[in-house]
Amino acid sequence: MAGESGKGRTVTQSPDGPAKVTITEIAREAGVSVPTVSRVVNGRSDVSPATRARVEDLLHRHGYQRRIPASGDRAALLDLVFNDLDSPWAVEIIRGVEEVAHENGVGTVVSAIHDRAGDAREWMTNLRARASDGVILVTSVLEPGLQDELRRLGVPLVVIDPAGSPASEAPTVGATNWAGGMAATRHLLELGHRRIGFIQGPARLLCSRARLDGYRAALDTAGVPVDDTLIVPGDFYHESGFTGCNRLLDLAEPPTAVFASSDQMALGAIEALRRRGLRVPEDLSIVGFDDLPEVRWSAPPLTTVRQPLSDMGKLAARTVLGLARSVEPASPRVELATELVVRSSTAPARA
Amino acid sequence: MAGESGKGRTVTQSPDGPAKVTITEIAREAGVSVPTVSRVVNGRSDVSPATRARVEDLLHRHGYQRRIPASGDRAALLDLVFNDLDSPWAVEIIRGVEEVAHENGVGTVVSAIHDRAGDAREWMTNLRARASDGVILVTSVLEPGLQDELRRLGVPLVVIDPAGSPASEAPTVGATNWAGGMAATRHLLELGHRRIGFIQGPARLLCSRARLDGYRAALDTAGVPVDDTLIVPGDFYHESGFTGCNRLLDLAEPPTAVFASSDQMALGAIEALRRRGLRVPEDLSIVGFDDLPEVRWSAPPLTTVRQPLSDMGKLAARTVLGLARSVEPASPRVELATELVVRSSTAPARA
Repeated sequence: MAGESGKGRTVTQSPDGPAKVTITEIAREAGVSVPTVSRVVNGRSDVSPATRARVEDLLHRHGYQRRIPASGDRAALLDLVFNDLDSPWAVEIIRGVEEVAHENGVGTVVSAIHDRAGDAREWMTNLRARASDGVILVTSVLEPGLQDELRRLGVPLVVIDPAGSPASEAPTVGATNWAGGMAATRHLLELGHRRIGFIQGPARLLCSRARLDGYRAALDTAGVPVDDTLIVPGDFYHESGFTGCNRLLDLAEPPTAVFASSDQMALGAIEALRRRGLRVPEDLSIVGFDDLPEVRWSAPPLTTVRQPLSDMGKLAARTVLGLARSVEPASPRVELATELVVRSSTAPARA
Repeated sequence: MAGESGKGRTVTQSPDGPAKVTITEIAREAGVSVPTVSRVVNGRSDVSPATRARVEDLLHRHGYQRRIPASGDRAALLDLVFNDLDSPWAVEIIRGVEEVAHENGVGTVVSAIHDRAGDAREWMTNLRARASDGVILVTSVLEPGLQDELRRLGVPLVVIDPAGSPASEAPTVGATNWAGGMAATRHLLELGHRRIGFIQGPARLLCSRARLDGYRAALDTAGVPVDDTLIVPGDFYHESGFTGCNRLLDLAEPPTAVFASSDQMALGAIEALRRRGLRVPEDLSIVGFDDLPEVRWSAPPLTTVRQPLSDMGKLAARTVLGLARSVEPASPRVELATELVVRSSTAPARA
């Protein structure tokens, strides 16, 4: 917050840009004063929208990139944006991001935009005013208009586990959801299960589809035909695991094992069995996905696919802080490895 | 981050202070230039420690109080500081704080200081540099030196569920831990239980002591003698609930019900029973404390004492934002009501 206007901000040359451009040149080209450009650069609100758009457009075309100040002039900030803060999932990511940000003397601003356009718009206004140095979006689609605005502002963006188009321009950090889905299903096949139920995540999320495809691929590879009646919808939350599992148990020929593609759905499934007086894993094996800290202590402890949420947060933070210093990531899309963790909720199929 | 030095900062009169003081007067009294005072006010690093201390001391003595700027000159920030981000507990508080902060156009900077003096010191340096408008500390002791520094900086502080001295100068927001402990124990007494185990939280936290005292008070009131062998140590985490419950079950005369003073310990206790082939609540009733979202889906769903974590976050945020606008809280210590939530982990004692 300290520092005179324009301090700690540098106009740098883009890799493909022509020569270095100064704020004076931008001002001349835009037909405005130098202080006006400086106000735009610093995200001040006292500039007309038309002028701001013109100046931002020029800054963008000349490859302007904001930089974290090298001096201790002010503390840098990084914005971490969720749709909702309603899951233990969120705190794992916050933990990873905060750790790396803290090491770099950067503060982590956590926001939830609740899939509401108004909230996203206000967040953008605040982001601009606090001159955040980078943004990490978590499994969240930011409307294209706001993505463009971030780009024009020169604020680097990294997306964790993108739900939208894989053709996103921003670097993304994810987990090997497909391989994880395959590993969970293989584990059940190796235990002798042949009728394996699958509880899906929201179809609009790519990670849900990848887990389902991994399930199908494991069955295919093992020569087990995919039975679509064994695939039931869910939304990653407990309740949908509970109802999904009940649907599977009500089938004429119920499964002997269920792969719930999130830990919370797996916990819902365990509760569905308990209410029927059935036991896990004796009567039904259950595998989850995430490895949230709490499932080490579910009754029984859950066999699941570990998704390195905190490591994903760390990598996203390193990537966005790198971008803020004009360091391009080695790859635009990184998937961290998932890992099967075998605990007590799976057992061999009965003969 | 935007704005010239000194903008958006006002020296205001303290309620008990003499007349309004200007930065010019402070500069004269400190024997430094006006820009130097301005640099101190804005948390810049280019001021010698001795000068900073002298200026801050004068600002404090003259009742200087920083204010959130009324204009849209910059976005305000609020710091939310945890010891560790390792519990679903944390995300509930973040959710409440973020909601109120967002409504006020304020960004929420989340940090973890891991009980390490170095981390706390770095956090303070960053806080100063980003000119945060307020601090919320969660169940965390900030060393007195840092508390003094916050006070000198004029940054308002609110503490959620304080672990330290109840004589803290900062306003605190808590829950009615004593009443909650009493309600949980009464519920078990009303079900006919007489031998009721208690798994403690860390003794250094006041909230742990209050829950234990509530347990003792309920027994006393019911004329049931307190048996100290039924009180076992814990640290609020799963594992200690697991070992604590095993200790209770190994007693010559084990309890018929257990009050675990955190939900995570209650989940550990349920797992201890499952491993012994015992059932909840048929063989042992269990009550938790917190009402984390996940315990609605534990097997069985947990009877627990709801602690309004998200509401506590909201109130703390409102209080600290009020202080930043020089609005004193109605009361320096507010306790939000806890509430017993009866689910499926408790049942009448067997005759």
